[in-house]
Formats: sequence, structure tokens, C-alpha cells
Amino acid sequence: MSVRTVGQAARTAFDPAVYLVTDTTQCGGPAGVVATVRAAVAGGATAVQLRDPDASTRELAELGAALLAVLRPAGVPLVVNDRIDVALAIGADGAHVGQGDLDPVTARRLLGPEAHLGLSVSTTREAAAAAALPPGTLDLLGVGPVRTTTSKANARPAIGVDGLAAITAAARAAGAPPCVAIGGLRAGDLPALRAAGAVGAAVISAVCGTPDPRAAAAALAAAWQAR
Amino acid sequence: MSVRTVGQAARTAFDPAVYLVTDTTQCGGPAGVVATVRAAVAGGATAVQLRDPDASTRELAELGAALLAVLRPAGVPLVVNDRIDVALAIGADGAHVGQGDLDPVTARRLLGPEAHLGLSVSTTREAAAAAALPPGTLDLLGVGPVRTTTSKANARPAIGVDGLAAITAAARAAGAPPCVAIGGLRAGDLPALRAAGAVGAAVISAVCGTPDPRAAAAALAAAWQAR
Repeated sequence: MSVRTVGQAARTAFDPAVYLVTDTTQCGGPAGVVATVRAAVAGGATAVQLRDPDASTRELAELGAALLAVLRPAGVPLVVNDRIDVALAIGADGAHVGQGDLDPVTARRLLGPEAHLGLSVSTTREAAAAAALPPGTLDLLGVGPVRTTTSKANARPAIGVDGLAAITAAARAAGAPPCVAIGGLRAGDLPALRAAGAVGAAVISAVCGTPDPRAAAAALAAAWQAR
Repeated sequence: MSVRTVGQAARTAFDPAVYLVTDTTQCGGPAGVVATVRAAVAGGATAVQLRDPDASTRELAELGAALLAVLRPAGVPLVVNDRIDVALAIGADGAHVGQGDLDPVTARRLLGPEAHLGLSVSTTREAAAAAALPPGTLDLLGVGPVRTTTSKANARPAIGVDGLAAITAAARAAGAPPCVAIGGLRAGDLPALRAAGAVGAAVISAVCGTPDPRAAAAALAAAWQAR
């Protein structure tokens, strides 16, 4: 396991345009996650989040270390969902927490000032609460689910592109970090999301488990760039 | 949530004689865990481990903070099972890891030198591996399950008192940390376990969910002292 310190990548290096969130089951197991991430990065994925709430801590750390071996040479950042201990253990670039994970202030304290930290929000109220946190706590808000998603158990109701636009606008007005859209997104959704103020699209099933994850990521990257 | 740093209690203050491991379900929920811990400490529990693999990270941190509010005034240490991030977040006295959690060297690095760190082992081979870790990595081995346990899913086969004695002897010969017995233990087992070389007995169901956790802990403490 790597002994890197969190935050080797500068916080400014995190580009969430095409942000792949991994799903071990959809990828067919840990080796499939590594293969999917490698292909997605070749296709244009700009950031990766390791998410596997069913893995043991050791399994998650081993998978994270394997992903870092793929991502460091590519210059693509890796964050870990929920598990700050695993992020610290493997020297990831940061973490992403949900409303049921460690509170962002505590997560920031554990990660240190240089790590990337994102927070999931589903309402304008949660976005306003995020904006009220001490400056430097958060780097990114994950806003959704935009569409109905099957990748997360107990996901909240879909907010739609209009909901994404409303939360993004509220977040901007309140001085919150930029918003990345998430939840059931396909390449065709991306131009509208960008127009609505999102700085990127986080995807799971649009890449994981598809026949050609490289092509899937390339289609997302192209759609994000489309004007 | 507390902002204490891990390790306020000196490592030498950890007495595992009557070591309560919490089970939220058996205790009837988080409030039941707090009540059980309060009663058990009044009865003579000497150390507490927070364990709840089904809780969200935030639920676990909130429960841990509530337990610290009970345990600090009593001078009884609290460690967190598996979740180094939660231990750090709440300022617990340390952590306990299993063979599927973060490896002990990484856990020690994240916790710092003053925190308590325990490791579960079930075989003489695992005890020997623990002994081979760098000095100062581990403070305690949890050895078991001695009896068949219903408190942990996928527990390994029971090793019995003879197995506990064999592993404890092997650990001592190899220079490993002291061994606390765990797994389906009742008060009547404790004299034999102490005679077999254990430095304490870790219990779940002998206290959690019993009608009188204070009396249950007192019976364990008395049994441990019996000669």
C-alpha cells in the first residue's frame, strides 16, 4: 500500500468535467473497476471517485491503491467516497462525503488543507448549509440525483435538470463551491447541464459495465465540450 | 462532536480485563448502547470498543461522541472498531482492527504513536505475523472466537480455551502484544481464560441486551478477579 500523504495533487488540478464514480458490481469486481478506470481515463475521464460501500476496509484500500497506480501516471485525481481513513491510508487526492458521512468540517480537518473534498447535496437548503461552512472546507458540491438512478440504494427523488439549475444558482448566489451534476446521466444530458451551470457530470452506469468504457467516456467528454 | 486529538489517554491506561464490545442491535439502538455502556462501567467494565458495521459513518461518529461523554468522566478508554476515521474524528483513545480492515502499520500511522491499537487474530500464524510487525504497532491482540458467537456474522470457527491458550503462548513466545479473549464468553469462563494467559475478556452478548448490564459487568469483573 502506498504511503503517500493526501494532497500531492494540488486542489486546483481537480477537473470534474467527466467525473467517473466507480461501482464494483457493475464493473464485475475489483479487477473490472481497474480496467474500467484505465479505459475511461484513456477516453477522457477527468476525475475518479472510488465508491464501494460493500467492500471491507482492506478491500477498499487495496482497490484504491490499484487505481492510484493507474491514475498517477495519467495525472487524473482519485477521491474516496465516505472513507476518510482509506483516503489517508492510500494517499488519495481527497474524499467525497454524503449527508450521512462525517461532517465536512471534520472531514477537512482529518484530510488536511490540500486535499480535495466534495459534498453531496440534494436541495437548495443543503447547498445553503454548504455555503455557510468555513471557507476552504469544500471544493465541490455533487448535486442530484438529476435522473432516476439505479446505482445507489435509497437514492433521493430525481431533481431533474430544472432542479439542478435551481440548486446550482442558489449555491452560486450563496457563495458555495461549484456544482457537479450526478444521477442517471447520459451523454445527451450534458449540454443542458452545462448550460444550467454545472461544472461537470459525475457518472456511474454511463461508463461502468458498458461494453466499451473508453468510448463511453469519450462520448461524455465530447458531449461536455459541445456548444 | 468532540475535536479532541486521539491519544489523550496514555496507552498504559488501557486495562482490557472486562472489555465491552458494543452491539447496537442487541442494545436496542444507539440510546441503548449509551445506557448499556454507562451501566457496564458502573458495574466494572474497564474498556469499551464501539462496533457497528451497519451504522452510517455519521451515526457511528455521533454514537462514539455520546459514549466519550460517558467514558471520559469515568476514566475508561474508548476504541473504535475498524473505522480509523471515526476514531480520529471523535478523539477516541484508539482503534481495533480485524484481518479485513486497514493493516496495522497503516492504522498506527494514521492514529499516531499514543493511541491504543488492537488486532483480531484467530490462529497462531496470525499471532506470529502480529509479533513480526514493527515495535509499537500493536498494543493488544483480540484472540477468538473462544466460543461459538452469534454477535458477528461470518465469525470463524470457535477455538476453545485450549486454542486460546495455544495462541496466547505462541504470541508470548514470539514477543507479540498481550492477548484478550473474545467470542461467546460468560463469567464462568473467565478464570480458565486468565489461567490460560489472557489479560482480559472481551464480551458482547454477556452484557449487551441483558436485563441488568451493570450486574452482568460486575459478575464478569468478579469472575476475572477470582483465583
